[in-house]
Amino acid sequence: MKRIGIDLGGTFIKAGITDENNDIIFKGEAPTGLPCPPETVADNIAGLIKNLVADAGLTIDDIESIGMGSPGTVDSDRGVVEYANNLGFRDVHFSDMLRERIGRPIYIGNDANVAAYGEYIKCGEKYDSFVFVTLGTGVGSGIIIDGKIYTGFNFAGAELGHVVIQKDGYPCTCGRKGCWESYSSTNALIRMCRDEMRKDKSSALRRLCEGDESRLTGKIVFAAVAEGDNAAKAALKTFIDYLACGIANVINIFQPEALCIGGGISAERDLLIEPLKKAVEAETYGNCARRTEIRAAKLLNNAGIVGAAALGGIYK
Amino acid sequence: MKRIGIDLGGTFIKAGITDENNDIIFKGEAPTGLPCPPETVADNIAGLIKNLVADAGLTIDDIESIGMGSPGTVDSDRGVVEYANNLGFRDVHFSDMLRERIGRPIYIGNDANVAAYGEYIKCGEKYDSFVFVTLGTGVGSGIIIDGKIYTGFNFAGAELGHVVIQKDGYPCTCGRKGCWESYSSTNALIRMCRDEMRKDKSSALRRLCEGDESRLTGKIVFAAVAEGDNAAKAALKTFIDYLACGIANVINIFQPEALCIGGGISAERDLLIEPLKKAVEAETYGNCARRTEIRAAKLLNNAGIVGAAALGGIYK
Repeated sequence: MKRIGIDLGGTFIKAGITDENNDIIFKGEAPTGLPCPPETVADNIAGLIKNLVADAGLTIDDIESIGMGSPGTVDSDRGVVEYANNLGFRDVHFSDMLRERIGRPIYIGNDANVAAYGEYIKCGEKYDSFVFVTLGTGVGSGIIIDGKIYTGFNFAGAELGHVVIQKDGYPCTCGRKGCWESYSSTNALIRMCRDEMRKDKSSALRRLCEGDESRLTGKIVFAAVAEGDNAAKAALKTFIDYLACGIANVINIFQPEALCIGGGISAERDLLIEPLKKAVEAETYGNCARRTEIRAAKLLNNAGIVGAAALGGIYK
Repeated sequence: MKRIGIDLGGTFIKAGITDENNDIIFKGEAPTGLPCPPETVADNIAGLIKNLVADAGLTIDDIESIGMGSPGTVDSDRGVVEYANNLGFRDVHFSDMLRERIGRPIYIGNDANVAAYGEYIKCGEKYDSFVFVTLGTGVGSGIIIDGKIYTGFNFAGAELGHVVIQKDGYPCTCGRKGCWESYSSTNALIRMCRDEMRKDKSSALRRLCEGDESRLTGKIVFAAVAEGDNAAKAALKTFIDYLACGIANVINIFQPEALCIGGGISAERDLLIEPLKKAVEAETYGNCARRTEIRAAKLLNNAGIVGAAALGGIYK
């Protein structure tokens, strides 16, 4: 039996059909269509699902269940997107709307939590506690305890990126100051790099971003580090220092059996993941014989689809 | 049927017999006897239990189970104190040792987690998620999720006091810098007060501690605030500011249905708990219709005994 996973974003809806092994066997995407009413988004999702099923040579009856990750606060019990700032939605009964349009069981959850569940599933569901942290324009996170997604009583929890690690520090988009997100997102890495570039006029970064610092990306930073550029190396050192601080915090809170790091830059094993592991170990010395396994994500951009499709398995 | 709860400390062993309502009906204590081998501590605990039962006019067969909270990392599954720095113990099989001596079922857990469970029980076990934070010489904590004590896979989790909130800040006893504990323990309040006293030679604090700042206590600080002393008020304002930052962090992570604050100073409802609630609300503005209930502890020093006694109920 197959399942479908939907990753609802502000610009695109991504969808995939997964098999018994939670592998994606067919993928597709469509524009979200914003700004528009939620009904239109539901129409667009339903249209994408119908096309996907047809293109895969299946019928909707071959699909056991459909899961969706949405930005914002999602009440998984009622199937409601309570509040999603970047979709402009409040109290949208997506489960009902999609069930009407598609006629299959629908499960929804917050996108970061669903992506965490995808990585958890792909790691073999073998960990009794699993924390996923994804480094992108922000710091997203999801927590799996005893095979269940932890969201808190009001579905708004697991926001590890909005833990202040530097009181009165750099302003965060959430309104607080000094959140982990403000120091450990790729945006923060780029900011740190820009600061170093300004101090070091001879940095290779200038050439790599063609003299325009607004063109700096995570990729360029790692390219510069790889060629030994001092400014980029200094920025990455600062970045890893803050990232390790936040990871050590997460370990002291959860002592999860595994902590998985995702986001595009998590592919940088030698330059990011390995030095990070060492820095975290230095911050979590102590008397734990058994230590959290720190690992890089496997699924990257597919985690949302795989996790969403697998939601049907939680409620089975 | 009655149960016994033991609160094992570095100096004293406290014990209580609880009834069906988890109320303590009889209490006693004995010296821990350190420094001595774990066997001697087990003898002392067993002796205390025997005396307590006899003094209450009961026999050991009236006791359904015995629970104990111990400092350090406690493997509740195996009944082993893995590491307790302030007892000087490593890998002590306390459950086996006590079962041999007393012949009743024994359950053990970390003392802060067990105290959290006591407060949870006394709040009616009605919360699906419950975080307990106790402000004493350190910042202790325990997390109850779905009626179970959360400890992480290696029993060393739930250390909310050792979340860095001020990177590279005040040194913590754990070896990190800027832990929440370094800003929100009563020791931190006293330190903040001492700093203010030095700036303000006319502070009433000088009189209240008889000119000897080493005599400052939490009680004295609140007495000075109550009489309107500016230095004490300034210190308390700083203290609440950091405390609210840490509490807001905990809410962003767990969104617990209730967050309970314990420790001696939690009795200061008007001067501490109420202003704290306002400060936390300001830090957690956002779009959650349902917000964590912040409440002061009910049991204070008895939480450890009540929670330990109730451990038998978790495993029933």
